[in-house]
Amino acid sequence: MAKEVNSREDNYSQWYNDLVVKANLAENSAVRGCMVIKPYGYAIWEKMKAELDRRFKETGHENAYFPLLIPKSFLCKEAEHVKGFAKECAVVTHYRLKVDENDQVVVDPDAKLEEELVIRPTSETIIWNTYRNWIKSYRDLPLLCNQWANVVRWEMRTRLFLRTAEFLWQEGHTAHATSAEAVAEARRMIHVYADFARNIMAMPVVIGLKSEKERFAGALDTYCIEAMMQDGRALQAGTSHFLGQNFAKAFDVKFANREGGLDYVWATSWGVSTRLMGALVMAHGDDNGLVLPPKLAPIHVVMVPIFKTDEEHDSVISVMNDIKDKLLRSGLSVKIDDRDNLRSGFKFAEWELKGVPVRVAIGPRDLKNGTAEVFRRDTMTKESLPVDGLVDHVVALMDEIQKNIYEKALAFRNKNIHIVNTWDEFKEKIEEGGFLLCHWDGTTETEEKIQAETKATIRCIPLDSFVMEEEGKCVYSGRPSKRRVIFARAY
Amino acid sequence: MAKEVNSREDNYSQWYNDLVVKANLAENSAVRGCMVIKPYGYAIWEKMKAELDRRFKETGHENAYFPLLIPKSFLCKEAEHVKGFAKECAVVTHYRLKVDENDQVVVDPDAKLEEELVIRPTSETIIWNTYRNWIKSYRDLPLLCNQWANVVRWEMRTRLFLRTAEFLWQEGHTAHATSAEAVAEARRMIHVYADFARNIMAMPVVIGLKSEKERFAGALDTYCIEAMMQDGRALQAGTSHFLGQNFAKAFDVKFANREGGLDYVWATSWGVSTRLMGALVMAHGDDNGLVLPPKLAPIHVVMVPIFKTDEEHDSVISVMNDIKDKLLRSGLSVKIDDRDNLRSGFKFAEWELKGVPVRVAIGPRDLKNGTAEVFRRDTMTKESLPVDGLVDHVVALMDEIQKNIYEKALAFRNKNIHIVNTWDEFKEKIEEGGFLLCHWDGTTETEEKIQAETKATIRCIPLDSFVMEEEGKCVYSGRPSKRRVIFARAY
Repeated sequence: MAKEVNSREDNYSQWYNDLVVKANLAENSAVRGCMVIKPYGYAIWEKMKAELDRRFKETGHENAYFPLLIPKSFLCKEAEHVKGFAKECAVVTHYRLKVDENDQVVVDPDAKLEEELVIRPTSETIIWNTYRNWIKSYRDLPLLCNQWANVVRWEMRTRLFLRTAEFLWQEGHTAHATSAEAVAEARRMIHVYADFARNIMAMPVVIGLKSEKERFAGALDTYCIEAMMQDGRALQAGTSHFLGQNFAKAFDVKFANREGGLDYVWATSWGVSTRLMGALVMAHGDDNGLVLPPKLAPIHVVMVPIFKTDEEHDSVISVMNDIKDKLLRSGLSVKIDDRDNLRSGFKFAEWELKGVPVRVAIGPRDLKNGTAEVFRRDTMTKESLPVDGLVDHVVALMDEIQKNIYEKALAFRNKNIHIVNTWDEFKEKIEEGGFLLCHWDGTTETEEKIQAETKATIRCIPLDSFVMEEEGKCVYSGRPSKRRVIFARAY
Repeated sequence: MAKEVNSREDNYSQWYNDLVVKANLAENSAVRGCMVIKPYGYAIWEKMKAELDRRFKETGHENAYFPLLIPKSFLCKEAEHVKGFAKECAVVTHYRLKVDENDQVVVDPDAKLEEELVIRPTSETIIWNTYRNWIKSYRDLPLLCNQWANVVRWEMRTRLFLRTAEFLWQEGHTAHATSAEAVAEARRMIHVYADFARNIMAMPVVIGLKSEKERFAGALDTYCIEAMMQDGRALQAGTSHFLGQNFAKAFDVKFANREGGLDYVWATSWGVSTRLMGALVMAHGDDNGLVLPPKLAPIHVVMVPIFKTDEEHDSVISVMNDIKDKLLRSGLSVKIDDRDNLRSGFKFAEWELKGVPVRVAIGPRDLKNGTAEVFRRDTMTKESLPVDGLVDHVVALMDEIQKNIYEKALAFRNKNIHIVNTWDEFKEKIEEGGFLLCHWDGTTETEEKIQAETKATIRCIPLDSFVMEEEGKCVYSGRPSKRRVIFARAY
């Protein structure tokens, strides 16, 4: 099974798609651009959700739910916002089908909506229209809501998880009494995302600010985390926006401040999506399949019995059940693959493809010797270990694997960050892939020219790592610059 | 605050709506028929989800996610299904907005979809179109999937939670090799729902079968759980459908059976929705507000400090923090309401309105005596208890309250079930409300006539309680009948 996956070297893009499909994470649906998230993929997403949700609640946020459908007029109230999203909106125009005179089911022309509704591409507008009624006084602030929801953006070229017409995400929407509090919130949440990416997804990220051109439509500042995939491309893994008073003004949301005056409310929004599933695959997967960090693995340990006779089978399974019980009590998720119609080599390949962190195989010889074969997915290495003490070993291995996957990705990322000082160097290095740290003159004009010539965009102005404040000259225009930014080709 | 809620007696419908809004469960949005679920309401829904999800996983189901949008042609493939849903479909016809010559944002006529898409009213069609590729052999069966999703049914008259254009739900969709297995699954899941309703929602339900007229569009049999609200009306709280081979035939889903032949696959689907939130309110609420069963209460214990001086305040809060820590360690959720700008009477009323099961108040006199005032929301009674031993008492109280709420609802329900034998009796009793157990001749014709005359429908043919198999005569037509069914007016 594993060999049906293209290698990363041959065709990275095809390797990615094969892996997502063959590991049963997701597949394309019959509806253009919409995917089906299969049970194994959804189980990983559920683990991501649980970890994120816990962090949101720990930082004082509450979940709520706002309508899927947004009146067209709402979308239009914030000028930049509508410019950013109008081109990719799915529009509901009718609310009924009927059977026509030819016995065909057609849209009922009598059931045309007075005002069209768009399926939310993001929910700032409907939420700020709601907040108008929730916020009267400074006592109602801060208002810290999050929602887990589906959104639709009609993308023309779609790829499983990375860019789909419908995707699942969470969107936080907060309201504050001061600009400073809102900025602090936007920064807090990008750090929550970075913590999640690093410690749960085992994926290094750079925290940074977007350039004006790459900002969210309607934001004053967009914070982001940027990760590097194994082909050297960047992937934006999460964003957090300081929205200023733009939406408060568009929806007339004012509050009575402590001094008795009326102010517009300050806002943030922040989100991560099922795109993270794509990042997870591309950050760690190899030519044998997925490599899952233990903290997101739906199955931590798979056990494969090796046997010829029924008696051997029963003895092996009995030992395995004992180990399984102990592992379960240690909080690990364990599966004994006792399917009788498959060769063990096939099973090995299948669980490697699915990225299960540890495989334990036990056969008749192991029974005699009191041993088991323990295989690590991250290093593809195995060793024979005494069954006595096995459980502690495997439990400890989970931390080691989590750490190793992160460090491997970190080493790869750092190796592929290049300090670039000239335009020739830029053009050469961008073909090799990776992040280019270079000076930029701060203008959208230069940014666009660089993109037109090289397909590279500014991923971010780094804020927590690779912060290089220094006098320098723009790699393209030669104009003065005070700090380096990260350019890369991106997903 | 509580007194702003209408009493149940005065106007039950208004009482319900007031309660939902004032207890901060939900409110109407700017989008016709769509609600906003507010944080307190969503926290209850999250608890429902967690309990249901655990039960689904324990019975072998996996979560997945299928597209929001369904091609119109899919909906039409199962004849009964489309008849049932066509009239309430939100239809997406375009995928882009644009700015026209008058600088107005309009639907772009060039971005018309070749085939219209409907927002899922339920997902049988898109799922069975997907299952065709997932199911090849009996080894792929049973296939046991569930999804948590939003759906849209364009209802003309909507009520918060009970009937909204968009609602949240879960829909299980399973595939089986035999009819018997599919029937067993449909029955298993209605029992899972009943267990949840009784033990978590503290709401008595009758498990039964729907009459042909009330069946799900496309099902051979619909199992349901029916609850009684405090106005005597029935509320359908969950359904589980045996779909036969209808969807397998419509979407050509066949499997190689053990004998090597090809068979159509057998199906079930089952769902509960945010409608359960409405049931929860109406089953237990009173004129002071919500009454939440502890198993669904976001806050189990609220503590209100009583004080005059700062010194008293600090002493009381210190004792409260100590109790709070111990309650948290016992797994309860606790809130100390230390807001400084509100009278304690106001706080009491607010937490009563929100249905928090237990309130603990401590004042200076309590400090002297080593006591606390413990108030039960379900009985509206309070007693003074020693702080010593308070934690154990409150923990035990949770079970007692959970049980008491159920028993109260059960007594009410049983008191309002009437055995009815004549048409005059029927017409009289139906005005009083409650469930009427009576003979019915089994015809849709009689069912429709009864509904036309009395607005009562067959809620179910009971399967687990009130099963009365006996020779009798239809209460309306006088024709022979072999068992009683439940008629009621319903939500």
